[in-house]
Formats: sequence, structure tokens, C-alpha cells
Amino acid sequence: MAMHKSTSSSSLGPGGLDLSQAFFKPINNAAPPSSTKRHTKISVVGVGNVGMAIAQTILTQDLTDELALVDAKPEKLRGEMLDLQHAAAFLPRTKIQASLDYSITSGSDLCIITAGVRQNPGETRLNLLERNLALFRSIVPPLVKYSPDCILLVVSNPVDVLTYVAWKLSGFPVNRVIGSGTNLDSSRFRFLIADHLDVNAQDVQAYIVGEHGDSSVALWSSISVGGVPVLSFLERQQIAYEKETLEKIHKEVVESAYEVINLKGYTSWAIGYSVASLARTILRDQRRVHPVSVLAKGFYGIDDGEVFLSLPAQLGRSGVLGVTNVHLTNEEVERLRDSAKTISEVQGQLNI
Amino acid sequence: MAMHKSTSSSSLGPGGLDLSQAFFKPINNAAPPSSTKRHTKISVVGVGNVGMAIAQTILTQDLTDELALVDAKPEKLRGEMLDLQHAAAFLPRTKIQASLDYSITSGSDLCIITAGVRQNPGETRLNLLERNLALFRSIVPPLVKYSPDCILLVVSNPVDVLTYVAWKLSGFPVNRVIGSGTNLDSSRFRFLIADHLDVNAQDVQAYIVGEHGDSSVALWSSISVGGVPVLSFLERQQIAYEKETLEKIHKEVVESAYEVINLKGYTSWAIGYSVASLARTILRDQRRVHPVSVLAKGFYGIDDGEVFLSLPAQLGRSGVLGVTNVHLTNEEVERLRDSAKTISEVQGQLNI
Amino acid sequence: MAMHKSTSSSSLGPGGLDLSQAFFKPINNAAPPSSTKRHTKISVVGVGNVGMAIAQTILTQDLTDELALVDAKPEKLRGEMLDLQHAAAFLPRTKIQASLDYSITSGSDLCIITAGVRQNPGETRLNLLERNLALFRSIVPPLVKYSPDCILLVVSNPVDVLTYVAWKLSGFPVNRVIGSGTNLDSSRFRFLIADHLDVNAQDVQAYIVGEHGDSSVALWSSISVGGVPVLSFLERQQIAYEKETLEKIHKEVVESAYEVINLKGYTSWAIGYSVASLARTILRDQRRVHPVSVLAKGFYGIDDGEVFLSLPAQLGRSGVLGVTNVHLTNEEVERLRDSAKTISEVQGQLNI
Amino acid sequence: MAMHKSTSSSSLGPGGLDLSQAFFKPINNAAPPSSTKRHTKISVVGVGNVGMAIAQTILTQDLTDELALVDAKPEKLRGEMLDLQHAAAFLPRTKIQASLDYSITSGSDLCIITAGVRQNPGETRLNLLERNLALFRSIVPPLVKYSPDCILLVVSNPVDVLTYVAWKLSGFPVNRVIGSGTNLDSSRFRFLIADHLDVNAQDVQAYIVGEHGDSSVALWSSISVGGVPVLSFLERQQIAYEKETLEKIHKEVVESAYEVINLKGYTSWAIGYSVASLARTILRDQRRVHPVSVLAKGFYGIDDGEVFLSLPAQLGRSGVLGVTNVHLTNEEVERLRDSAKTISEVQGQLNI
Repeated sequence: MAMHKSTSSSSLGPGGLDLSQAFFKPINNAAPPSSTKRHTKISVVGVGNVGMAIAQTILTQDLTDELALVDAKPEKLRGEMLDLQHAAAFLPRTKIQASLDYSITSGSDLCIITAGVRQNPGETRLNLLERNLALFRSIVPPLVKYSPDCILLVVSNPVDVLTYVAWKLSGFPVNRVIGSGTNLDSSRFRFLIADHLDVNAQDVQAYIVGEHGDSSVALWSSISVGGVPVLSFLERQQIAYEKETLEKIHKEVVESAYEVINLKGYTSWAIGYSVASLARTILRDQRRVHPVSVLAKGFYGIDDGEVFLSLPAQLGRSGVLGVTNVHLTNEEVERLRDSAKTISEVQGQLNI
Repeated sequence: MAMHKSTSSSSLGPGGLDLSQAFFKPINNAAPPSSTKRHTKISVVGVGNVGMAIAQTILTQDLTDELALVDAKPEKLRGEMLDLQHAAAFLPRTKIQASLDYSITSGSDLCIITAGVRQNPGETRLNLLERNLALFRSIVPPLVKYSPDCILLVVSNPVDVLTYVAWKLSGFPVNRVIGSGTNLDSSRFRFLIADHLDVNAQDVQAYIVGEHGDSSVALWSSISVGGVPVLSFLERQQIAYEKETLEKIHKEVVESAYEVINLKGYTSWAIGYSVASLARTILRDQRRVHPVSVLAKGFYGIDDGEVFLSLPAQLGRSGVLGVTNVHLTNEEVERLRDSAKTISEVQGQLNI
Repeated sequence: MAMHKSTSSSSLGPGGLDLSQAFFKPINNAAPPSSTKRHTKISVVGVGNVGMAIAQTILTQDLTDELALVDAKPEKLRGEMLDLQHAAAFLPRTKIQASLDYSITSGSDLCIITAGVRQNPGETRLNLLERNLALFRSIVPPLVKYSPDCILLVVSNPVDVLTYVAWKLSGFPVNRVIGSGTNLDSSRFRFLIADHLDVNAQDVQAYIVGEHGDSSVALWSSISVGGVPVLSFLERQQIAYEKETLEKIHKEVVESAYEVINLKGYTSWAIGYSVASLARTILRDQRRVHPVSVLAKGFYGIDDGEVFLSLPAQLGRSGVLGVTNVHLTNEEVERLRDSAKTISEVQGQLNI
Repeated sequence: MAMHKSTSSSSLGPGGLDLSQAFFKPINNAAPPSSTKRHTKISVVGVGNVGMAIAQTILTQDLTDELALVDAKPEKLRGEMLDLQHAAAFLPRTKIQASLDYSITSGSDLCIITAGVRQNPGETRLNLLERNLALFRSIVPPLVKYSPDCILLVVSNPVDVLTYVAWKLSGFPVNRVIGSGTNLDSSRFRFLIADHLDVNAQDVQAYIVGEHGDSSVALWSSISVGGVPVLSFLERQQIAYEKETLEKIHKEVVESAYEVINLKGYTSWAIGYSVASLARTILRDQRRVHPVSVLAKGFYGIDDGEVFLSLPAQLGRSGVLGVTNVHLTNEEVERLRDSAKTISEVQGQLNI
């Protein structure tokens, strides 16, 4: 079942076609439209709350010329496609398509995977992971088949392991598989600091790295506001800062995702903006630095297999361009290595 | 219960305050911040799918300096507020607040009402309307109290009657109460025409006017593409056009709302973009023409009481600036008057 | 002499290179950056007031990933490049290059020609044209050599003849050579009408077609405001309209270019916005309709050779997609044909 | 002589007025347009290359609802106004006015002064300053008279002294008078660093502070890239960095303004973007940090009178909100104080 943008031209009857042809007249000796058009295409797999918040933000921010949606639920999928298409008069022209069939994603520059299975009552974490692996086996190979040169961006949770899974299933070079990781955690961190200091969050630099979720690592030394490093500022001003206080902010970040889920049932808007910002950096080759999940092997002495963890990475049209050599304290390094070890052990149990 | 943007500064402990004060130092003899700041504030009442799609699109398009959300469900409300706030690092700085208490809407330039009750099984249309009237009695007066100079924009359905209700309850001059009306229907109309002709929907002019919903009136003579009026073009080219064919497109527009609701359970994205486009025109005083629900009395011989119907209206910072004198055929006028009569009768039964 | 963006890395000494390499560390087994990057490149030939207004507006509107400037004056060229580059911190990352050498334009999607020679005192129009032809012989072939798939957009005056010249020199299919033509005249027309009616110029549809300049033809029947065709509106309202009055507006449009030139010495901003709007439609494949100079042969009975005149054309990534079949009165057709004849005669005298 | 946007409605003759009135019909009992409209107005004094680059960038970025231009040369002024107005169809609706008379600036939120006299051959710096003081006596009092609540933003050079002059002449609280200062120097600094490291300049934090021009101070410790402080990074990596090398970059920044002036005769684009970024932060109350010229008394032990120097200041709708307590080395402090002393002495000689 393919649901193309064209809502069936038969709706206008045979007369419709005449109108279309009569209305515009070609100029003499015009060449046929070139097949080498360079335009941008993004595919989003999974049209749940997260996938749709991403798709809609990408549309509003005019980041792509073509948007393809894929999901396993045909009604929901067609409903979301139509709802976006109906806004055409308010947006720059974008081709919006939806289908159960991955052929619709053909030639994508960026494929964003938001699909995932939910935990059943009493299900072990490993069992859940095996089911997600099975799901990814049905998603990644067709994406790769139809867009062999794309960047894969994994948003589904647990994001670090599933980014590894997507990488293995894709056969892609490692720079072309990225997990959204702690990009959103870092945004929440920046918001809390900005809110407290009454400054613009865009003037706050602050990273949360490592494993997305409870074990993430807040890099206190990375915090700067308006270009002023906060920790060294405090030291110079001889303002005692309580490690506890800072840990409280980090705790608030970790808990904020749970809080939103408890309150509204899911998170959507912030992850939508977060992933749209990654899409912009990648597709417009902006070479900006984002904390995202990349192959962490070799960084900070991590050598436990092929583990993906979030580190501040420079992103561009080729995916991951490099990882910033940010300084970590011994304790921070220790926590990163612990996460790597845990993840590595989990990955070892997967049949991949 | 007030949920201000400030996520409780106590989270940083007493040391937090010191940091904030130490970080920025005032210049000598600076005047206190002016109380006459001119900034833009939008309030959205109702944080369901429609209200949130509107709020998020307004944020992404950077249309306001302050956004206040009001709803009767505290958890959902706080969850949505937090989810938007967490995106601060990806957006221009906007103050986002949420509360059960309307005082939070104080000083709004534009108040958008999306709240409404749902039909109970077996409930009559009149009974449903009475319940919506009761709801509006709890919404409109506090909005008016806290923002006596605002523009009221009603999105809740049935939009034409509820815009009348909001007007009566507000005591506002009639140019300051607007219903979103057929602005979205017209967008769907333009999309279908553009999709058929493979042109940009922004180059298609086409209005659906009258009552929002099944009785809406498509103005065939208003359709132009790239500045070329379509009907007279067809006549000149001696292309027979079947009235049936055109009615089929209109039918498709009317059904498309139902289709989306059947498929995904509700509509959200398109109405979000539609209302954001109205917000831009109003707040930035763009004087653009939109088909929206306005007091229709005196237009096209409508004299059945104070009925609101969608007509192409020029909007700006003062609300409705005027109604375009678009030509209607006798049949179109007849249908408008029929709608007016029906609505007038319904309104006569309301205790307002 | 090539003036690349890189302001000579030697400026940072040998230590500089180390820094760059040390700062980012590649991830393991990353693939080399792909050579098939799909990004957008625009070249502007001529960095006078018009060329720079175009280049700067394109940058501000974020329409391209790469911008190449070519001119024959090395100092001016480098000065303009540096002045734009110094704004990098305020703009999305764009590669800005400048050179006397056309190799810098290699792989452009769109090449905009603004260069032209000025009339010497006493010089005949034909002699001036011959000198412009000579100039174009030095511009068009190298552009074609380095960007064989680009769209050529000619802004230099007399734009209709020089678009023909560019087409002949390029050997391109006719849909890939476009003159900015009356796109700006039409904008001035829309401004004057909007200003008079106190509406948003974006709600005014109105075309000026034909030869850019004094002989242009205002299509009165094309004027609509907010979707309401003005002429038929006037007829229906039995408002007498004076043909004289409308001609006065057209005269004002024709004179406005001269007026600006008399007052400030040249025109720049409006043509900058006008050409940027064409660039957006073409590169983002927006399929919008613009009045631009295209091969007019075969339209409205024009058969005087290969004359370019402005007609409402649908533009997209392949250049000209078609010409709108807008209705012209007999008088309007007559004037178009007169222009075609005059231009054809001039072209016949050129050694091309 | 007032040159209002309205290009003389007489152009459409008496019939014109009828059309305007006939086209839109007011709704019944509409209230007159409110006089309490909250919209944004920016005035620019001086329509030379700098003033016009600022005005045009502000328009393109849609930062204001109303733009007023003032200059002493009526032809140039009217030419620039018309050239901007002719682009109306390509831009959101903005009221653009121009006049020799300052009444046109009435009610501005932000007044940007770019006017200045040029140095005559052999003229002393003091004499030049006296002539600029005389010019400012004709500019500042009328601006203050018509916009008593505005923010004054001085761009004219020497910017630090002239910001002081504007402050004294205005009688404004000190937070409402700002000089563009080293905001542009810092942008050039960030570009050079970003270009060298091949990163996005928006990811580079780096300040140049102090006196705008040759004596400016580069804050090496403020440089961070993607959130990583560069100097401490180099130390940790035990990469020797040559102070010389860094000074070379600073020298390049200082010289780059001269270079652009030598090459193209003036600077325009970068200062246009720089001032537009300040306008956005101020008018949209973004609370971002910019290095701009503020009253430096009391900072870093500066006590030589009322000297304005650039420091990283947090800006918002009330102007300067505070100055960031950035750490300076003793040498940097020394250089700031030297500048302060020099400027203070110059100011002491002025008859103000």
C-alpha cells in the first residue's frame, strides 16, 4: 500500500488532467527535467508522538525538500500524512509521502528511526532488547537498501545499544550511524542553568555525555555562560560551590524525562526540536558540535568492545567528523568506563 | 497552583542565588527595568492535541515573547509546559508559563481558545452546545478580566456558534473576536488544487467560506493559480468543466477532516499551522486576508441576528479590519443565508 | 589569483595546524568524507551594487551552502568577500569564496550574471550591446565549462537581449537560461497597488510582462487583491475606473527605476530581494510562478525569431517548467509583438 | 519635507480612493483601531553604506514592524527608502518611512546612529571629534524628544567616545545608551578561529573587549570551541602555544577593518549583521551576552571618569542588564585601564 502525496488525481476526473496540461505551456525546445536534481530527503520511521514531533518540526523549520514517513500502522500513517499535507498553503513546498513500504524512502539523505517496542509487564530488559533487535532487523536493511549513502540517526531507546545495533545491521562506516543520545539531556541541562541565571539558554554551553539515561555524566567543567567558564569563575571569585548543589541539577535533568512522561504520558516536543537541530547540522553541513552517541572505543581509555556513548561530536554532511577532546576528571572517566562495560556486557548477550 | 517557568530556584540551594548575582554585575546608575516594555504575549486555553500543535508551531515560528498555557488538568498542563521548556536551547528565548489560574494570561495580546467538551453518546447537539456554553462561561470572563485589550481567537467547535458565544460573553467590540472558521478548510482546498496542478499551494488562491463544516461554501470564482483566474481561463480556452468535478473537490475538503479524525483519532498539525498563520497576521499587523469567522450580519443580505460565518477578512493588530467584497453567485449567497438561518435558530435556543 | 575562504592558515603558524588536528579526534574506522555530498552552490558574477545586494540577501536568507563571487576587479572582490566572511558568527555556516578565476564557480547549481558595461557618452545602443556581448563572451563559456548543469540567471541590462545572448553562448537547453526580466517591475507594481489599498503586498497578485523597461506591459486583468480580481470587482460594483488612472500606476512603475537611480545613483536592494526570491524558487524546487524573461517564441503569436520576453513562468529545479496561459487583451498582445519585433531586429544586428 | 511610505495617493486619482473604500467593508459596530497597539519601531540615522546595510539586514530578518530613516541628504534618503519599499512583495509587511525631520522617528523602541563626519586632510583628531560632537548635538536631542523611552545604539566612530557623547546629550539612564563597540571585532575574531579549525563560527566563543580599534584587547582565556576552553585544553594536551601566534590572530582582526576599507572603500555587510544581531537581542528581550560599549566605570578598577568601553554585557529590552564578570589577566586589565585613561583625557577636552 503506497500513499503518495498525490491524493489520487482521479478525484478531478478526466477533465482534471486537461486542466493541468492546459494551464502551463512548455517553452520551445525545453529539455526534460534533469534527473540529477540535488535536493534533500529525510525519512522518519515510526509516526508515534516522537516521530511526528520530529517530522513536524523539520517541516516547520524548512529543513528538507522531501519527507517520507514509514510505519507499520496504515491508518495512523495515512492520517498523519494527510494532516501535514493539509498545511501546504502555510509552508514552503515539500513533498510529503507515507507508506508501509520502504521503497518510499529511496534516496534519503537522512533516515531517522524512532520506532521501538514497549516493555511488557514482567519482561526482562534483555528480552525487550531482543524484541527491539528483531524490529530493527525489519527496519535497517530496507533503509540501507534504498538509501545506501544516507546517515542513520537512531532515536529509539535504549538509544546507545540500538545505535550499535543499527550500525551492525547497516554495514555502514561508523561515521554514518549516530544516536540522538544526550543531545536532549544537554538541552535540558542548559535550560535549567539558564533558567536559574536568567540568561538565554543559547548562551549556555554545558554537556551531558555518556549513556543516555540514569547513568549519564554531567561535565561540570564544560559549563560556560556567555563565554565565561562557570567553575573557574566561582573559584576565582572564591565562591564556594557545593558539589551537592551541582549534582542536584544533574539529578533534575535525569528525572525530568521521567517527570514529563509521568505528567503527559510521553515526551515529544523537546526531542522533536533536538533531533531537528541534529538534522540541520548534518544536512546543511554546519560542522557544529553536539553530544550524540558515537562509537566510543578508543576515547578515554574505553576498550570494552564496540560501545556507543554520547560524546561531543562535530557533525556534518558526512556524519560524525570527529570527537572533541574535552577534558574529563578521573571520576568522570571512571563513570564513562563503567557505562561502557555495562553496555558491552548487554551487547554480548545479543544475537547479532 | 501556578507553574511558572522558574523551576523553583531552591533547586540550586542558597548558593544558587549567589551565583546568579555574582555572575552579572550591574553598570553604575542603571535605571530599573522599564515597566513599559512592549513585548508580545499569547495565551492558549486548552492543551489537548489542537492547543499544543498551535502552541508548538507558534514557538517554532518565533511569533511571541511570552506564551501562557491554561487547562483544567494540572498534570497534563505541567507536562506540556516542561516538554516545551526543555527545548529552550534550540529556540529563541520565550517565557513559557502554565497554570490552572487565568492570572497567568494577564496582559495577553492574543487569547486562543481550543477547549471544548466532547459529545456524550446520545447527547443532542443543543445539549452539547449548552455544556460548551457553560465551559466558555468559565473561560471567557477571566480572559477578558486579565487581558481587556486582547484579541479573542476561537478554535473550539462548533466554531461559528462558539465565536458568537465568546463575543457575547466578552463584551468586546466585534472586531476583536474571531473564529478560526474556514481558514483551514481553505488551506485544504488550496492543497488539493495545487496537488492536482503540481503547483505551489502558496500560488493558489481559493476560498471556502460560510459555516465551518459540512455546509461550507466553496467560491469557485475565487480560484486563481499564479494570478490566473481558473474559471475564466477555462471558459476562454473553451475547456468544458464539469460542475460535478469541482463539487467533488469541495466534497473531498469537507470529508478530509473526518478522514484524518477516523485515521489518527484527531486533527492537529494543519490546524496548528492554520492558527499560527492567523496569529502572525494579527500580531505583526500584516493586514492579510484570511477566511475567518466574523459577524456576518449585513453581508450578502444576511439579517438573521448576530451570526458569525467565515468571510475573507483583512486582519491586523486591531483584529478584523474589514471584509473583502468578494463576488458570490446567487446560489452561493443562498447557501450562506441558509447557514445563517440555521445558526441563528440554534443561537436563539441558548440561554445567553 | 584565488582568494579562498581560508585566510591562509599560515597566519596561525605551524602550531596552528597542530591545534586543529588535536582538537578533534576521528572516531575509529570512520569513512573518508563522501564525495557525493549534495549541497547547494550559487555563483554571482559581478560584485557591483546589484551583485552584492543579491549575494548578501541570499546569505541572509540562508539559500545556499556555498557562494562564489567572480569579478574583474581583484581589490573590490576581495574586500566584498572579507566583509561577508566577517559576519560568519551571525549566520549559518556558508562557504564564501571569491576569485578572478572562474574555476571557483565549479559545480554551481545557479549562476547569476550581474556584470555589464556602462554606456559611454554618445555611444549608440548597438555599440553598447556589442561591448556587452564581448563581455558575455568572457563570462558565459567559463561558467558553462565549470558548471555544465547549472541554471543561468541573467540580471544585466538590457536583460531580454542579454538573456538571449547568454543562451546562445551557453548552448544550454532553453529552460536553463532565465532573465530576471519584469520580476522586479511586478514587485513595484504590487507595492504601489498594496500601498494604495493599505493591504499586504503579498496579498496582491499583479503582473507586468514583456520587455523589461519602458515598453513593459501591465496586465490589468491579472490584478487581484486577497483573491478578488480587481477589474471584475469594479465592474460588478459599477465603479467606473479610468483607464488613465491605471496607466498612471504603470507609468509610475516604469519611472520608479529611473527615480531611484536619479536619487541614489543606482538600484540595489529591491533587485537583490527580487533575484533572491527567484533563487529560492529555483533551488528549493518551489514551482512558483514568476514573471521572468524566457524564450517567448510561440506564445501569443510571437514568431519573430528567438526573442526573450518576460511571461509568468513556473520555475523549479530544472529552470523554466512552463509558461502560464494568462489571458491578454488584443492590445496587450499587440504591444508584446511590437517589443518582440524590435528586439528581434536588434538581435539580428549582433554578431552572434 | 516628509517622505512617507504612501507614494502620494493622488497617483490613483479620485477614483483610487473609492476603490480602497469599496474593496473592504467594515463589519458592524467594529471599534476604531486601538491606539495602544504594541508594535516595534526602529529608527536609523544616517543612510550611508553602514546605515543602509543595517536597515536592510533588519528588514530581511524581519526584526521590526516599522522602520524610519533620517539623513541630511534628501535625494539619497528618498532613493534608499523607495529602493527598500519596492521589495514589499518579497518581505513581511513593514512600514518604511524616511524624512529629514526627526518627527518621523516618534515612538521608536531603538534608535541607531550611524551618521558621522569624515576627517579633513590635516585635521586633528580632537577637531574631528568636536565636529562629530556638533553633529550629535543635532541628532541626539530630537531623537530623545520623539522617543523618550528608546534605547540609543551608537555605531558612528570613534564609537566609545561618541557613545559617551550620546549618553551625555540624551540625559538617559546609562543602561539605555550602548555603543556597537567590539561586537564586530569579536565576530571577526570568531571567524578567524573557526576558519582555522574548520568549525562553525557559531560554536566559537571569543571576546575582544576594550576600545574599539587598535587598542582593543583579545581575551585569550575566553576562547572556547564547542564548549571546550582552548587555552586550558592546550595546556592539558601539553601543546606549546606561542603567545606570538595568538597575537598574530588579534593583529589580523585589528587590521581586517583597515583591509576591507582599503579594498572596497568602506565596510558595510559585517557591521550590518552585527548591529542587526544587537537589535534582535534588545527588542526581543533575548538576554544574550554581547561585547558592546558600556559605561566601564567601576569595572576592573577603572575609575578615570565616565568612560565607555566594550565589555561582555547582557542585553535585553531595557538595554544593558549587567556586565559579565569575565576574568582578565593583569596585563589585560592594564591595557583596559590605559585605554580608559586615554579616552578620559580626550573626553576632558570636549566642550560637553
